[in-house]
Amino acid sequence: MSGWLVIAGLGPGDDALITPEVSAVLAEATDVVGYIPYVDQVAHHPNLTRHSSDNRVELDRARHALFMATAGHRVVVVSSGDPGVFAMAAAVFEAIETGDSSWRDLNIRVLPGVTAMLAASAACGAPLGHDFCAINLSDNLKPWRVIEKRLRLAVGADFAMAFYNPSSKSRPDGFGRALQTLKDACNDARPMIFARNVSRPDQMINVVPLTDATPEMADMRTVVLLGSSQTRLIQRSGAPLVYTPRSVSAWAIHPRISSGVPASVRVGTQGRAIMTTGRPNTRAASILARAPVPPEFLDTIKSMLWSRNSARSASGVNGPREMITSWLGNGGGVRGGSTRRIT
Amino acid sequence: MSGWLVIAGLGPGDDALITPEVSAVLAEATDVVGYIPYVDQVAHHPNLTRHSSDNRVELDRARHALFMATAGHRVVVVSSGDPGVFAMAAAVFEAIETGDSSWRDLNIRVLPGVTAMLAASAACGAPLGHDFCAINLSDNLKPWRVIEKRLRLAVGADFAMAFYNPSSKSRPDGFGRALQTLKDACNDARPMIFARNVSRPDQMINVVPLTDATPEMADMRTVVLLGSSQTRLIQRSGAPLVYTPRSVSAWAIHPRISSGVPASVRVGTQGRAIMTTGRPNTRAASILARAPVPPEFLDTIKSMLWSRNSARSASGVNGPREMITSWLGNGGGVRGGSTRRIT
Repeated sequence: MSGWLVIAGLGPGDDALITPEVSAVLAEATDVVGYIPYVDQVAHHPNLTRHSSDNRVELDRARHALFMATAGHRVVVVSSGDPGVFAMAAAVFEAIETGDSSWRDLNIRVLPGVTAMLAASAACGAPLGHDFCAINLSDNLKPWRVIEKRLRLAVGADFAMAFYNPSSKSRPDGFGRALQTLKDACNDARPMIFARNVSRPDQMINVVPLTDATPEMADMRTVVLLGSSQTRLIQRSGAPLVYTPRSVSAWAIHPRISSGVPASVRVGTQGRAIMTTGRPNTRAASILARAPVPPEFLDTIKSMLWSRNSARSASGVNGPREMITSWLGNGGGVRGGSTRRIT
Repeated sequence: MSGWLVIAGLGPGDDALITPEVSAVLAEATDVVGYIPYVDQVAHHPNLTRHSSDNRVELDRARHALFMATAGHRVVVVSSGDPGVFAMAAAVFEAIETGDSSWRDLNIRVLPGVTAMLAASAACGAPLGHDFCAINLSDNLKPWRVIEKRLRLAVGADFAMAFYNPSSKSRPDGFGRALQTLKDACNDARPMIFARNVSRPDQMINVVPLTDATPEMADMRTVVLLGSSQTRLIQRSGAPLVYTPRSVSAWAIHPRISSGVPASVRVGTQGRAIMTTGRPNTRAASILARAPVPPEFLDTIKSMLWSRNSARSASGVNGPREMITSWLGNGGGVRGGSTRRIT
């Protein structure tokens, strides 16, 4: 039996994002199997038979591909993006696990691809530049309670987030529900990115504060990203750049707190920094002087000081002015007027 | 000024995973900037000047690239994998935000790539086939307390997980600490995947139960994946296939509970299913008959019933026998002896 089965990712849409590995295997295939628009994307060659099917028949499609490979065909199952991220690879393995035992011995490979969230992130900057999660917002295969629990825990972990399948005709209300959960849990104006038809000629990128996001901004061709509490906007003449810094930076260091910091991680000989803000409702320095010290504070301070580059750049103007307001939450983001001084 | 700056991902290592988009831009570049092994991976052409630097100098490297682009050069900053995932894109934007304001007006683009976790996932099946998160385990730029909190919340959300930078010479103890946190929080034998030099000729994939994972299994060339509580192993003659099913499946439905399920989602006319298990210490059916009904139960049931394919496949032998033990936690995984009957 010389048949094989490959599950391949076609990337987010642009042919220039299909890896050479995938193109090579498609050129050798006798059969290509997948959702109609993805099969249509595959380059024609005379010996290739196309098997298109509608979505929501993933297991039937997987079994069809497995039958053909068992019969000696060279079969490629195509997904958009990466086949292992909310796509056909898991469906094929479900079919194998519950199907004919001979399917386990097939020559089977998964070829990775550029998944939509990476192309969406690249299109606006680097919002997934720090720890992040990817959640499928469809409740076709899991209950809403699970989705909402994951959203709340992801906010608690301060992950940046990528949301697949935010909305469809058969699920008109789901994204609104997710959005409300996120607004309640985040309680700030961090950037949300709506990336529609990413990498295609009609790509549209829309960056809005979470507070202004509305359900109709997403459809089934949209992948949605949400920044963490740390995510920054760089304003410029064109579209803003959105990115999440690599480091978890400190938002304030007060003398009373710094006395507990090991000497080796103090800033210079003073070991203290003072944060002030131009907005009267967020005078963090005076607030901190009265506040009890939360236990995670010392680690935050250490983190900031270890991150020498961050510490040095705090003497700049453009960066820290905005960074602090972002830390302070509500109404912050890029609109702030605060500043930080390290002494 | 005709200079530009592109931040491009070279994929996990194999040249066949570099997108044509990235290859095209490298052919036009005058300067390539990056960590030594990544610059070495770029194909030679006569007009290309190489600027290699060691790691840990990301901001200096970014500023150097920005200076050259401002001076009219066509500069590509290369990262392995995807540049937006724990790589150079965020570093460049940090440099822009805190640097000369003219840098904001540069022609700057990010080109996505196949990040390591996708190649690692493809190499062993589809362990990231359901909701997942990606965490950088280096504490160079964030405190350990943040990492540990994220690990615990990710287990609580039942995400599959990908871990970047698990270990290095300068951080010999970090991965052991993360591993202990995960073992304590998961308390089961879900599969952990160590993917070393993924996509390269000397690729090594090691799949072990979390309980058997040890710190020395990871080094700085390893990306580590961890299944969710749902992740499955398909045993076969070669290496096992690891995948996380697309659906959150129900692990038990009891008559007393099903009376609260809307009629539309009942199974047939009976609306009930009974779960039994061969292991005396996990006789879930009898346990459930005595237990109060947790509120998330109804959603779980609905999820299972909506997922028609799962429900049908529950009559198979190989699949559900293992699926149930996976749900039951402790000592479950692929070694179970339970079964489920839908009536």
